[in-house]
Amino acid sequence: MSIEVDYLFPAAIDGIKQSEMIAIGQTVGTWSSKYDYKEDSFQNYLGQVVSLTKLENGSQIARIKFPLNNTENDIGSLLTMIFGKYSMAGTAKVIQIKLPDNYGTRPKFGITGIREQLKVWDRPLAMSIFKPALGLSAKEHAKILQEVAWAGLDIIKDEELLGNFPSAPTMERLEACRPIIEQYQEQTGKTILYAVNVTGRADLLLERARMLVKNGANALLLNVLSYGFSVLEALAGDPQIQVPIFVHPALAGAICGSPDYGLSYQVVLGTLMAHAGADAVLLPSSYGNLQMTASQEHQIRDILRSRNVFPVPSAGLRPAIVPQAIADYGVDVILNAGTGIMDHQSGPKKGVEDFFQAIIDSI
Amino acid sequence: MSIEVDYLFPAAIDGIKQSEMIAIGQTVGTWSSKYDYKEDSFQNYLGQVVSLTKLENGSQIARIKFPLNNTENDIGSLLTMIFGKYSMAGTAKVIQIKLPDNYGTRPKFGITGIREQLKVWDRPLAMSIFKPALGLSAKEHAKILQEVAWAGLDIIKDEELLGNFPSAPTMERLEACRPIIEQYQEQTGKTILYAVNVTGRADLLLERARMLVKNGANALLLNVLSYGFSVLEALAGDPQIQVPIFVHPALAGAICGSPDYGLSYQVVLGTLMAHAGADAVLLPSSYGNLQMTASQEHQIRDILRSRNVFPVPSAGLRPAIVPQAIADYGVDVILNAGTGIMDHQSGPKKGVEDFFQAIIDSI
Repeated sequence: MSIEVDYLFPAAIDGIKQSEMIAIGQTVGTWSSKYDYKEDSFQNYLGQVVSLTKLENGSQIARIKFPLNNTENDIGSLLTMIFGKYSMAGTAKVIQIKLPDNYGTRPKFGITGIREQLKVWDRPLAMSIFKPALGLSAKEHAKILQEVAWAGLDIIKDEELLGNFPSAPTMERLEACRPIIEQYQEQTGKTILYAVNVTGRADLLLERARMLVKNGANALLLNVLSYGFSVLEALAGDPQIQVPIFVHPALAGAICGSPDYGLSYQVVLGTLMAHAGADAVLLPSSYGNLQMTASQEHQIRDILRSRNVFPVPSAGLRPAIVPQAIADYGVDVILNAGTGIMDHQSGPKKGVEDFFQAIIDSI
Repeated sequence: MSIEVDYLFPAAIDGIKQSEMIAIGQTVGTWSSKYDYKEDSFQNYLGQVVSLTKLENGSQIARIKFPLNNTENDIGSLLTMIFGKYSMAGTAKVIQIKLPDNYGTRPKFGITGIREQLKVWDRPLAMSIFKPALGLSAKEHAKILQEVAWAGLDIIKDEELLGNFPSAPTMERLEACRPIIEQYQEQTGKTILYAVNVTGRADLLLERARMLVKNGANALLLNVLSYGFSVLEALAGDPQIQVPIFVHPALAGAICGSPDYGLSYQVVLGTLMAHAGADAVLLPSSYGNLQMTASQEHQIRDILRSRNVFPVPSAGLRPAIVPQAIADYGVDVILNAGTGIMDHQSGPKKGVEDFFQAIIDSI
């Protein structure tokens, strides 16, 4: 078993030299004749250039094979190995990572688990976001939740910008919202998930997440790239965290935006999230104004679904877009409309109703 | 108190529109007339465009001021706020962050603390790296350590590629090396620091770090960008971790390499590391073949030192480079030579001796 990584080099780069540099430099590192006696041992750790392909525009794709035993079955060791030092050495972008199926962490819930919680099997799920992002009190969160829950919304999440701030501390938001969720369940037999944004330095974040779940949180939100893949893996692997983890793509553009550097959106929001334990991944949809082509979006969709992870196209979703979104995604999708629901001129309740109508009309 | 961030836009970008989008979109997010009654409250969270400067080449620098209370005094919330969603919205690079002096986490040791541990006050410190990167047993690590310690090396670190692998598990490396360190201290009264690479998903990494320190590790190494700033903050804030933390820049090029996207090397390896609790920061020196100009390197040096953090220029260091390095850095620097010491044709001992001779000849 091995890990295969595709690196995109611009035309001006000496692809043969650079791909050899990756295969050796990112594995055994240095190799002089004084280590000849250990050559057999080093062979077990050495990377290997599988192929170097020239594209029509002159760019080149080097495929490098790495031994699985150079990693610890997690994203941290994977990133250090495939791009740690080399990311600083030359112009290159990681555009594909092929991992063994059992590499990394599986979601505890994923598509099937979230559907089971919501008891909704046959249609896309509808999600929204508390708005405005900052400045609402915990009580104002509860008021919004009350309105959208009874209108039938499936999932609501905190703004990714909303941390544990004195104006509406994380635990207070949960405490204000939990009675609404319970009342809604008692009265309707239905569930609404509230993904609470969990933040802070790693040890405190993990402790806060456990406290939130212990106190009735039924979903979590994590800005994975701001806090680290290792934190997502810890949440996903924690037996006390028996709720789905929604992950936000905040900061992804800093790593994925450049055509020549970093790692592609497909790798970061698709492959890495799906092997780090995310249950549902928000992604900047191609319907909005963010950097995402339809082709990139569809690749991420397929990578996520192949591991039972829910794709959550976001940004730009509104009733008029729903037919296209459902044509692209079919039924196994969470359609996330923030302003598309919350900024409805007649209020969030009508926002949810119009959004649902568009879903029903499209499936 | 506030946080000021400089964004570099290419000439083709509408700088006025985009800087307004950052100031509002990365704070209150949305703002329609129905929230007018809360305008006073929202003002407390709203970002503000301070200036927009056009450079000679047409690029523009927008300076945006963010309220301090939109963050949690850590790097995670800072990154989400300044670049979370916007990183996916348009071409922009974060080239400077001005934080209040007391923002974030201070190093427990830093320059003065590491010097105190080593009892060396008046010269640059010399550091090296176990080589080859992968394939050495724990015993082979100990053998190398024995050789370089008695030759007078101040600090040695694991390769950043070396995780907790069966061939030389992290704890076994420590157990094999600790007796050498103790013997060296007893016989010479001097100390050598061994920065053990700490890896794994966040909860296990933190636990492993505590175990290492409990079992006698006198320094740690962390690939911050592979595991997350929140993990560095947790280590730096942990009362059980009373050893200096050396941080490695692995993966920095994926975020800093592009001229148009991401965050600059000065921001990531300077400002963010220095406010996240690092004691010493390895940086790709401009003497080697990595992407770093002398000007960038000197800016990072000054940012780190302003918070008592040791700059550790790495990659390309060897005796012939030492005079230039000392001219650039003076005395408060850790000069890190991996192959420059370990690949010496007469072995690591002679490598250390030649490196020290170059230091003594230059100060």
